[in-house]
Amino acid sequence: MSQLEIETFLVEDRLEALKELIAPCRVVDAESCTEESWVELLKETNPRILVAGWKTKPLPANTRTEIAPALDYVCYMPGSVRKLVPRELIEQGLLVTNWSSSISRTVAECALLLSLACMRRVAYWSHQMHDQGGWKNGTTVTQSLFDRRIGIHGFGAVAKALLPLLRPFTDKISTYTEGVPEEVFEAYGVRQEKDLEKLFSENDVVIEAEALTPEREKIVGEKLLGLIPKGGSFVNVARGALVDEEALLAIAERGDIQVGLDVYTIEPLPEDHAFRGCRNIVLLPHLGGPSTDRRRDAADHSLENLRLFQNNQPVTEPITLDVYDRST
Amino acid sequence: MSQLEIETFLVEDRLEALKELIAPCRVVDAESCTEESWVELLKETNPRILVAGWKTKPLPANTRTEIAPALDYVCYMPGSVRKLVPRELIEQGLLVTNWSSSISRTVAECALLLSLACMRRVAYWSHQMHDQGGWKNGTTVTQSLFDRRIGIHGFGAVAKALLPLLRPFTDKISTYTEGVPEEVFEAYGVRQEKDLEKLFSENDVVIEAEALTPEREKIVGEKLLGLIPKGGSFVNVARGALVDEEALLAIAERGDIQVGLDVYTIEPLPEDHAFRGCRNIVLLPHLGGPSTDRRRDAADHSLENLRLFQNNQPVTEPITLDVYDRST
Repeated sequence: MSQLEIETFLVEDRLEALKELIAPCRVVDAESCTEESWVELLKETNPRILVAGWKTKPLPANTRTEIAPALDYVCYMPGSVRKLVPRELIEQGLLVTNWSSSISRTVAECALLLSLACMRRVAYWSHQMHDQGGWKNGTTVTQSLFDRRIGIHGFGAVAKALLPLLRPFTDKISTYTEGVPEEVFEAYGVRQEKDLEKLFSENDVVIEAEALTPEREKIVGEKLLGLIPKGGSFVNVARGALVDEEALLAIAERGDIQVGLDVYTIEPLPEDHAFRGCRNIVLLPHLGGPSTDRRRDAADHSLENLRLFQNNQPVTEPITLDVYDRST
Repeated sequence: MSQLEIETFLVEDRLEALKELIAPCRVVDAESCTEESWVELLKETNPRILVAGWKTKPLPANTRTEIAPALDYVCYMPGSVRKLVPRELIEQGLLVTNWSSSISRTVAECALLLSLACMRRVAYWSHQMHDQGGWKNGTTVTQSLFDRRIGIHGFGAVAKALLPLLRPFTDKISTYTEGVPEEVFEAYGVRQEKDLEKLFSENDVVIEAEALTPEREKIVGEKLLGLIPKGGSFVNVARGALVDEEALLAIAERGDIQVGLDVYTIEPLPEDHAFRGCRNIVLLPHLGGPSTDRRRDAADHSLENLRLFQNNQPVTEPITLDVYDRST
């Protein structure tokens, strides 16, 4: 890992705890490695466990067959393992974990922020107040989350983490996703809408928190967006490609709904993207999760998995081929 | 009241309920009155109860002595009664109520929004994303409210309404105010800080929710603001005059803390005010409470008070001279 990664993930006594868990171990500054020196290092140390961060150089496809045959477990502290681990290694049985749901609550927090920001039109007012000398007038319309109907598309870890944040505002929370047994919704005290159309037409705020699959690309298009009641809001903290962005822009420009976005089909969002400048859209640069100060949650999740691994117990949320293929 | 006020406060069946409660009554469009025709109308009808809104013309000081001696109760649906009711009328025993704490939860909601917006630097990112073609980079710092220490200055209705909104994020909530018995803090499960200095130095986020009194003008000055830990946030949803705005601007410009403001010493905020353009400050144009869609809460509060008044029971939260003098 890089020094900055060590300092933000492994805060307080976490670096010591990590060293103890995987002793004997070697701490390497990932930024001091070239791809060549990295391969040399793997050969020389032939580790059983690799704890890695964003700056760790990629593992070659022949890591387990030739370079470091002892490698059994890659504990990747951030999220996107694709850059680090080629698919073949997982096929060959390499155990890989990442921050998985340990960061979900910060993404849920971002969804709450974007929902509240839509209700009070923060992008508009930020522009008005900072750059236009603006102030409210007698016809200014603002909205509250209190007593609102909120629909969440998806019922994974982010959706679940959203529930306690939304409950102080409203008990009218529903969801839509496929393949989740009815008991799960009941256990969480939410209502499953009959279909995606109902989710969009029967709620004042629709929050996109569904996993991206090939079938779900642009699933949120003109038709669904047009079902959101006038004056409603649409928030996306999942993946940009779930949404037809042209349709979303058109409806936002008409002012029919307010929009809050943290994710985009193309990231970084192109400098000339038409979302920029549309003041009915609150724009964030994919800051959902985790915030810098909560990287420690990802570290705690990794430490717990390392503990399990060392005790020959199953780790939580390993990267299966299915998860790998769906990740970005 | 004006037609717009009737349509936003007295939604659904509330106008009918009101008419029933105070029958026989006369509904007058406040915007159709001149100050002269208003006085004529008061003389002619000599009402016992007046239900009023922002657009209602002021009551003359001699309303009860000469113009409309029967007037016993002014049920003002919005907040600031000073424009409508001269102090003398309250001295003479006129009963006056306003929306008082029925709107507090929307102000608390605004404080939560501003706190979350500070943590994710929404003013900065809104400008970057909309106007500068910006995107995050490897050193972007963001923060979460989870597990943060939050200090609330004041322990009135807004502070109390904030607690359920903050609790899903943290249990480290403390407060500081004078004259509230220890049992009250205990009942709400918050800790009273020893003094104002501790409130500012021992918390990551300080939320201003204290009532403005002459002694509290600019009570939040350079010294207190300087005690907030670097990287912390300061949010004001109470009154601008509680804060030394020059000191606040200086510390925000240095980037020591993030700031979220809904209220200002001078409102509307002057077009050339130096807050405008400082991207470490999230600026809203006093939208705290209530949002347009929650004006119904103020109406419900008024209806309940009219019910109590008609049943010769004490109304809730009448405007005493003390409250009147402290109001804006």
